[in-house]
Amino acid sequence: MSQYWSFLVNRLTPYVPGEQPKLPKLVKLNTNENPYPPSPHVVAAIADELADGGQLLRLYPDPNADRLKEAIAARYAGFGITAQQVFVGNGSDEVLAHVFMALLKHERPILFPDITYSFYPVYCGLHDVAWETVPLDEHFQIRIDDYARPNGGIIFPNPNAPTGCRLPLEAIERLLMAHGQSVVVVDEAYVDFGGEAGDECGAEGGNESGNHSAIALVNRHPNLLVVHTLSKSRSLAGLRVGYAVGDSDLIEALERVKNSFNSYPLDRLAIAGAVAAMADEEHFETTRQAIIKSREALRSALLALAFEVLPSAANFIFVRHPQRDAGDLAAALRSRGIIVRHFRLPRIDQHLRITIGTDEQCALLVEALREILA
Amino acid sequence: MSQYWSFLVNRLTPYVPGEQPKLPKLVKLNTNENPYPPSPHVVAAIADELADGGQLLRLYPDPNADRLKEAIAARYAGFGITAQQVFVGNGSDEVLAHVFMALLKHERPILFPDITYSFYPVYCGLHDVAWETVPLDEHFQIRIDDYARPNGGIIFPNPNAPTGCRLPLEAIERLLMAHGQSVVVVDEAYVDFGGEAGDECGAEGGNESGNHSAIALVNRHPNLLVVHTLSKSRSLAGLRVGYAVGDSDLIEALERVKNSFNSYPLDRLAIAGAVAAMADEEHFETTRQAIIKSREALRSALLALAFEVLPSAANFIFVRHPQRDAGDLAAALRSRGIIVRHFRLPRIDQHLRITIGTDEQCALLVEALREILA
Repeated sequence: MSQYWSFLVNRLTPYVPGEQPKLPKLVKLNTNENPYPPSPHVVAAIADELADGGQLLRLYPDPNADRLKEAIAARYAGFGITAQQVFVGNGSDEVLAHVFMALLKHERPILFPDITYSFYPVYCGLHDVAWETVPLDEHFQIRIDDYARPNGGIIFPNPNAPTGCRLPLEAIERLLMAHGQSVVVVDEAYVDFGGEAGDECGAEGGNESGNHSAIALVNRHPNLLVVHTLSKSRSLAGLRVGYAVGDSDLIEALERVKNSFNSYPLDRLAIAGAVAAMADEEHFETTRQAIIKSREALRSALLALAFEVLPSAANFIFVRHPQRDAGDLAAALRSRGIIVRHFRLPRIDQHLRITIGTDEQCALLVEALREILA
Repeated sequence: MSQYWSFLVNRLTPYVPGEQPKLPKLVKLNTNENPYPPSPHVVAAIADELADGGQLLRLYPDPNADRLKEAIAARYAGFGITAQQVFVGNGSDEVLAHVFMALLKHERPILFPDITYSFYPVYCGLHDVAWETVPLDEHFQIRIDDYARPNGGIIFPNPNAPTGCRLPLEAIERLLMAHGQSVVVVDEAYVDFGGEAGDECGAEGGNESGNHSAIALVNRHPNLLVVHTLSKSRSLAGLRVGYAVGDSDLIEALERVKNSFNSYPLDRLAIAGAVAAMADEEHFETTRQAIIKSREALRSALLALAFEVLPSAANFIFVRHPQRDAGDLAAALRSRGIIVRHFRLPRIDQHLRITIGTDEQCALLVEALREILA
């Protein structure tokens, strides 16, 4: 604290990201990174942008990143998405920060689940947004009817984090219709990892064939904003690219905030790499299917070790062991060179969130747990 | 405008960056980019970060960018700067956005020159910061004594933009001492291009040998924050890296805001490239000296064409022609494939800001102007 700080700085409780240890050789299953490298086209596109001794780096990037918006729109052309319905930012965290300022700051409090991405209350603190939490039910499931109260907006991840549970699109559509006066933000960081039987938590089932993204609903609901990241299913956590898809009116609000904050949030290499990533459907499909398969195998192995494992539609699983303290388990894993995420938060302090690694990493995890539990 | 927008969105007047035309072959002298490529070590460091099929890109970057903070501190070790006195961001525009929120938002209005970087009032709009402008004198010079009024902070570029005029360090130190209760932000985007005789505008002369950066004053003044960018003198506008140097208390305020906004604003490639850029003193020195030399030659050539040319300590010059309308001149240059910046703003709507290009580009400009004026 200092006389020079704005009053705002004193009120902040910053977000604490998962540890990024600088030690090599750890089995790092704590921040939901993808165990597979990005598309080879990403590396090639970045190398192209570096050609001629990096001559292009001396020039500002396109402040609007039009090429990237077009690549994203093309990926969702089947839902009738155009580039005017796409906003891009420096990771989905930056996109979300702008969303809170542009679309969720109103008289009434916004609503989000009590157990969810812990950056949401931090954004509220930063932008002075009033908020209320809505408890997940006893199965850690979002119950749409619990949101039936006056609000300035609603935001939740789908699948939710750190639970991995997913709401079906018909539930989201019901929510959108019940709250036509509010913006509903569906934060789909993990949506691409759905797709096996049993990934719908709780009672609200019903699943469309193949697609799980609410981007399918954008052209029917002007109050829907869907946020995606390239960090997870595109293996690009290191490149910092996220985007939002919604009605062009919502996108315009985000552009106005962005253009009052930083004209060029995406550098040339990030734009080039992200464009290539969005275009490589084959690599995307191969790697996400591998992760889904590993997840289901890991789930079975942990069930066999007497863990409770929530059905997951994400690239992580959320587990607890009825006889072992979660903090002790995390510490024991760490001493064996394996990092998982343990949140010291109400209702979930006996759970661990474990990122799906390669099959080899999953096997090391299972072996370590078997030793610890023995 | 939409029912979903926050009241804030309606109040914003976003910044309009200089045009980034997608046409090749233009002589682009409108956004103060460096005409020379970055250090070859930058390209090599980024290529290293892409090794093994981009494996590293799947992992989050260091949220604190410690390597980069250390490289910047090392560059200014002669002034006793440590990594705890360095903040880094996604271009100096992002750094400045956080500065307005963390250090310039107080009860009293902040002060900045009437003619200056036009993003400052935009940040004030975004973060609801009260402000007053202080007119430059008739020579377009900042007059320190004019700032003697109650304020919530002071910010100005040095050299100023778009004038190119620089205040000597002793004037800045005088300002710091007169305003010990306020943060004084010196935005040194162009500071590395000082260094020839005659680059001190107006009467307030006095110049230290070699160094022009107020980073030299940081350890004497806890209310000083100095902001730099790698976009200009390090030829990395395309990579989006900026930083601030100041007392660790000021840096902590910035970290708190940053960690409530976006944990990872710098991607892996930007960190790797920026570290390499900060370490290559030889490339830095060669290219900045070349630009200073070209600037002085261009200044002489334009004086010979009857232009009024402000003495510049930046990588641009600010000129007017007593007989020709500045807008007409800019349009005539554009029709010849040369873009310069013309601001339709009070007091300077008869000026042009011209970026220093290569000697070849400067020669094309002079030739075009000679034709236009003929």
